[in-house]
Amino acid sequence: MASKPSIPKGTRDFSPAEVAKRQYIIQIIKTNFEKFGFQPIETPSFENSDTLMGKYGEEGDRLIFKILNSGDYLAKADTTLLENRDSLKLTSSISEKALRYDLTVPFARYVVQHQNDIEFPFKRYQIQPVWRADRPQKGRFREFYQCDADVVGSTSLWQEVELVQLYDGVFSDLGLEGVTIKINNRKILSGIAEVIGAKDKLIDFTVALDKLDKIGEDGVKKEMLEKGISETAIEKVQPLFNFTGTITEKIEKLATLLASSEEGLKGVEELKFICENVANLGMQKSILDLDVTLARGLNYYTGAIFEVAPPASVSMGSIGGGGRYDDLTGIFGLKNMSGVGISFGLDRIYLVVEELNLFPETVKVTTKALFINYGNAEAFYAMKAIAELRKAGIKVELYPDNAKVGKQFNHADKRNIPFAVIAGETEMNNKQFALKNLATGEQVLLDFEALKKALL
Amino acid sequence: MASKPSIPKGTRDFSPAEVAKRQYIIQIIKTNFEKFGFQPIETPSFENSDTLMGKYGEEGDRLIFKILNSGDYLAKADTTLLENRDSLKLTSSISEKALRYDLTVPFARYVVQHQNDIEFPFKRYQIQPVWRADRPQKGRFREFYQCDADVVGSTSLWQEVELVQLYDGVFSDLGLEGVTIKINNRKILSGIAEVIGAKDKLIDFTVALDKLDKIGEDGVKKEMLEKGISETAIEKVQPLFNFTGTITEKIEKLATLLASSEEGLKGVEELKFICENVANLGMQKSILDLDVTLARGLNYYTGAIFEVAPPASVSMGSIGGGGRYDDLTGIFGLKNMSGVGISFGLDRIYLVVEELNLFPETVKVTTKALFINYGNAEAFYAMKAIAELRKAGIKVELYPDNAKVGKQFNHADKRNIPFAVIAGETEMNNKQFALKNLATGEQVLLDFEALKKALL
Repeated sequence: MASKPSIPKGTRDFSPAEVAKRQYIIQIIKTNFEKFGFQPIETPSFENSDTLMGKYGEEGDRLIFKILNSGDYLAKADTTLLENRDSLKLTSSISEKALRYDLTVPFARYVVQHQNDIEFPFKRYQIQPVWRADRPQKGRFREFYQCDADVVGSTSLWQEVELVQLYDGVFSDLGLEGVTIKINNRKILSGIAEVIGAKDKLIDFTVALDKLDKIGEDGVKKEMLEKGISETAIEKVQPLFNFTGTITEKIEKLATLLASSEEGLKGVEELKFICENVANLGMQKSILDLDVTLARGLNYYTGAIFEVAPPASVSMGSIGGGGRYDDLTGIFGLKNMSGVGISFGLDRIYLVVEELNLFPETVKVTTKALFINYGNAEAFYAMKAIAELRKAGIKVELYPDNAKVGKQFNHADKRNIPFAVIAGETEMNNKQFALKNLATGEQVLLDFEALKKALL
Repeated sequence: MASKPSIPKGTRDFSPAEVAKRQYIIQIIKTNFEKFGFQPIETPSFENSDTLMGKYGEEGDRLIFKILNSGDYLAKADTTLLENRDSLKLTSSISEKALRYDLTVPFARYVVQHQNDIEFPFKRYQIQPVWRADRPQKGRFREFYQCDADVVGSTSLWQEVELVQLYDGVFSDLGLEGVTIKINNRKILSGIAEVIGAKDKLIDFTVALDKLDKIGEDGVKKEMLEKGISETAIEKVQPLFNFTGTITEKIEKLATLLASSEEGLKGVEELKFICENVANLGMQKSILDLDVTLARGLNYYTGAIFEVAPPASVSMGSIGGGGRYDDLTGIFGLKNMSGVGISFGLDRIYLVVEELNLFPETVKVTTKALFINYGNAEAFYAMKAIAELRKAGIKVELYPDNAKVGKQFNHADKRNIPFAVIAGETEMNNKQFALKNLATGEQVLLDFEALKKALL
């Protein structure tokens, strides 16, 4: 092979340093998931195609990676489709399996398939890779991890309260100050549509309102008019154009605005319960904010909608999101199973923690000390100590070869190993070890017990 | 959808209890990998097809899962191949990517691709799923995890010594007594072939000898003769038919037997170094044994060969294996890069630990206590305590709904939650909590600090 090997576009190799940092974040997410009572499940990387196809819209279907059937996959392929080179229609006859596109649909499939073994309410978390044949670009990959926590089987709003706390717990443990957890409610949005007398214009309305920061009140109103929303309607929701104040004030404004909409008022009531309880229980380092323009997954969520913005000093899109959905498992035939869940965006959180320099130094240290190899007799002396240190949980290594000492120290340096242990003939004969701090150059002679203590 | 959804054959869903047990094993493997100085890397789930194809033989090529190109994949397909329905030859024109078949070839690709960033000797571990289109059967899956540790860039035999200790460390931490780590050396096998004057009969010879337990000395000799190995040759290796004794005795027998083979004697010397040092350093709970019939990956390994057998009380195939290979990265153009590595068979280790009932009770406990929900005021009182307990790292939950108390206790029971906390109106007014041990039925009234202490 002449040229260096490579990997498919949109995929990544992770070096030891990168894996350590990713694991640091994942471990904090996992620990918090479990503190909140979520239990892990894992589903297969590929599902039967009919489990996934048609669940993410036409665009989603296109972005799902399909796996070619094994063996003589063309044997049963339709002749006409082959002759016409109809890629789209042929796919289902030469591919029966597809790579997971997200964790939500496999979770719904899991719940329905195992419904008799599951004790509801079921709080599950899942941290696994997903695959999308998206055009790769900065920060968008074809293989990436999703970290999801969902509860199904209860409509209790305490769960929304806990999910806000869960976000706060993870981001606080990561040392992030001022993460904003934005909350809205699908029923508020429906209520607004009802009030303006245009249920069908809900998305146009929200998309336009979302641009308030960028194009100003006049610009937003212009866009709304262009989309066919009447002046009278726009007048009715005038308070949304100056939607500031505390959450309590915002909720009061909404209650007035939506006085004529039953669904809207239900949304106000839900928001009030969640926000009041979150406020009274207190947040650690995050901020809760009510954002009435928040509309992610509008076709999907039926109650609370969440989206998380990184600290204001970092310019980056959302680092998490979620919401309440009343019919997740309906697609697989199990009705009336309300759920609510949130997701963490691992790749973006990684970039935020990196940018704010919040990865602890300990993440970078892997091996604590490298024993210098002075030949077989000394190496055996070192290996005896090494075996005992490892039993005590200390990460230590012997340089495998009796190479030049300078080369061995250089190896420790390049590997970010903070200590070297010199166990040459003299040290061996005196049953001692010279411990050298590679940052300061300081060196001390120790017996084994003192060495162990120093490295613990 | 009328029928319940399902998953592709050969794949598995893992329930919370199963994930917890798998994570318990993986955590022990990881901890030991890191104690021995191995660092984690991760590679993409799919590789470019030309990275994988041709690396595992014809059978391997067939078992690799291929990913269909996105978009109009038929547009550029060869007309003749389509017309002839030549599945085999068409594949490369409609599929450019394939799912990882093992972790070794992606590791070799990684080393070559990143050779300028890697500090050698490079000790890496990798714990990721692999996929094979094998016919599914008991204990054989189409998606399963491999757990590999390899060192590349040094020929030092201390690494073989350490890999034996690493096996011992993992299996001892899992509580397994009497795991047998079998060792052999490719050079011994080559030496035997040299001595019997039939280098080309090496595999036939080893396969036959391996059946000694089952078909006895006469049976083995009969098979060898049938395979064209001469009587004189068989006579020369007569000691192998009664190959018992301590490792030291076995090594002496081999030294005599292979006296005329330079390569064979090199193998004896290597084995001696490894076995003597392992013995002098001591093993925890495992046994090292020299098995001259061991020949796994014969085309591949160039020095030490390892295979691990579970404790004798469990009837199961090997739970690990590995060896030394002198030209791993040669397939990608990087020569003279010796490596040695071992692998742990997660699925089989799981079954062994399960059969011997060695999963600790703590693996089964997820949430420590369930707070019973007596309505919103009491739930808020509970949530205040819950938030504090979680900050102290304690896994606690509120039952989300104000359901009948019996139903809530039943939920704790089914979830294996050991404690319930009763915080009803009375307890709330007295600033107390009733902690109920659900195994014994014992109940105590505590203030918050005492509750925290009891649950820590």
